[in-house]
Amino acid sequence: MSSIDAAELVLARCDELAGCTEEPGRLTRRFATPALREASELMAGWMRQAGMTVRRDAIGNVVGRREGGARTLLLGSHLDTVPDAGRFDGPLGVLVALAAIQGAQDLPFALEVYGFADEEGTRYATSYLASRVVAGRFDLALLERLDADGVSLADALRAFGGDPDGLSAARRAPDDLIGYCEVHIEQGPVLEARGTSLGVVTGIAGQSGVAMDFVGAAGHAGTVPMALRRDALAAAAEFVLAVEELGRSSDQLVATVGKLSVQPGAHNVIPGAATLSVDVRHLEDAVLMDAVERLHERATEIAQARRVGLRWQVRHAPAVACDPGLTELLAQAVGADAVRLPSGAGHDAAMMASICPVAMLFVRCADGISHHPDESVSVEDVAAAIDATTRFLRLVAPPGPLLQPDR
Amino acid sequence: MSSIDAAELVLARCDELAGCTEEPGRLTRRFATPALREASELMAGWMRQAGMTVRRDAIGNVVGRREGGARTLLLGSHLDTVPDAGRFDGPLGVLVALAAIQGAQDLPFALEVYGFADEEGTRYATSYLASRVVAGRFDLALLERLDADGVSLADALRAFGGDPDGLSAARRAPDDLIGYCEVHIEQGPVLEARGTSLGVVTGIAGQSGVAMDFVGAAGHAGTVPMALRRDALAAAAEFVLAVEELGRSSDQLVATVGKLSVQPGAHNVIPGAATLSVDVRHLEDAVLMDAVERLHERATEIAQARRVGLRWQVRHAPAVACDPGLTELLAQAVGADAVRLPSGAGHDAAMMASICPVAMLFVRCADGISHHPDESVSVEDVAAAIDATTRFLRLVAPPGPLLQPDR
Repeated sequence: MSSIDAAELVLARCDELAGCTEEPGRLTRRFATPALREASELMAGWMRQAGMTVRRDAIGNVVGRREGGARTLLLGSHLDTVPDAGRFDGPLGVLVALAAIQGAQDLPFALEVYGFADEEGTRYATSYLASRVVAGRFDLALLERLDADGVSLADALRAFGGDPDGLSAARRAPDDLIGYCEVHIEQGPVLEARGTSLGVVTGIAGQSGVAMDFVGAAGHAGTVPMALRRDALAAAAEFVLAVEELGRSSDQLVATVGKLSVQPGAHNVIPGAATLSVDVRHLEDAVLMDAVERLHERATEIAQARRVGLRWQVRHAPAVACDPGLTELLAQAVGADAVRLPSGAGHDAAMMASICPVAMLFVRCADGISHHPDESVSVEDVAAAIDATTRFLRLVAPPGPLLQPDR
Repeated sequence: MSSIDAAELVLARCDELAGCTEEPGRLTRRFATPALREASELMAGWMRQAGMTVRRDAIGNVVGRREGGARTLLLGSHLDTVPDAGRFDGPLGVLVALAAIQGAQDLPFALEVYGFADEEGTRYATSYLASRVVAGRFDLALLERLDADGVSLADALRAFGGDPDGLSAARRAPDDLIGYCEVHIEQGPVLEARGTSLGVVTGIAGQSGVAMDFVGAAGHAGTVPMALRRDALAAAAEFVLAVEELGRSSDQLVATVGKLSVQPGAHNVIPGAATLSVDVRHLEDAVLMDAVERLHERATEIAQARRVGLRWQVRHAPAVACDPGLTELLAQAVGADAVRLPSGAGHDAAMMASICPVAMLFVRCADGISHHPDESVSVEDVAAAIDATTRFLRLVAPPGPLLQPDR
């Protein structure tokens, strides 16, 4: 099969998977839903067609295995989606992996392709739920968490055919792993701007999430003079612009206020409280921490000047570097002029990096759009991704000293 | 009865009315609800005790009448409330009127006290619904409007004992009206700051309401570089500060963004759209229109500079001047050093001004708080309001040339 034919098949399968949805007319496929079950079964069938043996692990990941040696290279991505999703974020990486291994037979190591059951975390507000189990970093307390309908994670997992009591055993021992390689749409506009199909990921940016409130005083919009106001939204507006200014201060930094709500939120009432989220990302944790600290100082200044209260709660997810050895092989597979770029988005590779070397290949997507029905990739770019992944598999064999698990 | 005793009775009745609510534990009394029915019946009883004959008109206003001559002076305020309301906004004015007429017997004109059934407009998103009927300015198309539960205004009115077919007949002919005088809590901090119990209202500010959106492009907070963003919230933030700056540019102006919501509103997504409300008020319509036009220009500049779309929809409610003659009598009744101030909030008097001369008396409230359970007035201030209103009634009689309906 030509790589264009293989890419056509991948896109047709993405279309077929898009039919596995919780909501008619739009693609929503959250963890442990019948829609995800249906998608997993489709994927399992395609894995068997590719000559793999298929199992489902305790968290519900579908895993295809092709024997080939004592050590194992992992490939894959996730099968769940955000609400009203596009059809490529996740599934494309699993299907490109399946297509790529067809062209790389007789490797001196085993291959496994993971279709992770939950990366987006939409149903239980988790991060990397499924790869977290594989990495042995799952907190069992999460099993009690309830979804919006009051169903616990443990009950949902049981109904899905998983095994809440077997999660510890689902951890992969690092010893026999060569590494993990994930193909994913870029979810950004950089490759398109550079005019290239593929990009080799240098690392996954560290991410700081801030939950914050400004608390002022509500009042009648017609009767409280401007000078006597403690308007929480005006404070928030000043801060939103400070976040944007900080993001613009460095090419490598992005900073976003994605959520903002005001209380009480009536046209004739001065806002008494404003609740915001801030998301800041950078490939270097030290730069990230410094940026967040500067934002905290700025928020404090704004709050003091406006006599409003400030609540500030921050969580950091550290940056993850891709493995230099695997990444070099992936760059060779892409070609001499391979574009290298950081990933601003999180991926299962970030979690898998805690048990083995990881590498990531980005595929150009139209207009940088993701998490939206307009998400789109070209058949030529998918063919290029299949070819590069196949070449990568051949370059990995035989494992050289770079790939020993001595990290 | 001393005026302090009369004021104690008024406050006790406000407490009793606060028990007429749709929601246990907080005061919510919307148009045509059983809670409003209960409050209207209490008020009707107190009107009868005050020697008045009581009727309910077609929109459900409770109206007490004391005969005294061919022409009639109207007093009153509203009995409905916003959700989670205080107990004085509205009812205080009706009860002070009832108390005040006790001290002014044998007037050469008739008196009517209105307890309006809907001023806040919470249930049907109306403005001055009940006084609008009295003023003959009710649009019959409103009868088809549905509340949040899908009940039409016509059906709600019938269930309330009103008469949708009799609304036109409920209009008061201007010919026999001397005027309308309303007592109301200030709902602002000015009288408190001036250290005085009462204020004579010069007019009701004109109000412009803007419904607007900035429409940019949603995108992944981690992957879209700052320079490529079209962030709708950043545009909105810049505009919120422009609104505040405009409001601060003049003592007489207030400008407020009370509502702001973002789409899609996720911590990791750049806002693609922001929806805002703007409320601008000034006692002079020309100044108000000019201020809103400047805001529109500013919003357009921001939208162009940020390559985002702008939707802008504005509604004006013109300013209403209180009647100079009645207001002068009211100021004499308050005393030589009576504070005069505009009303930034709307009141039934604004609607009644279309059929007769109006005057308004403000009563100091604690911290300028209204539309909130913490709304509070002192017994001394209420006593002062009763005394001033009684003196006003005596000054009105006999009607002099100032009070002829020749306006």
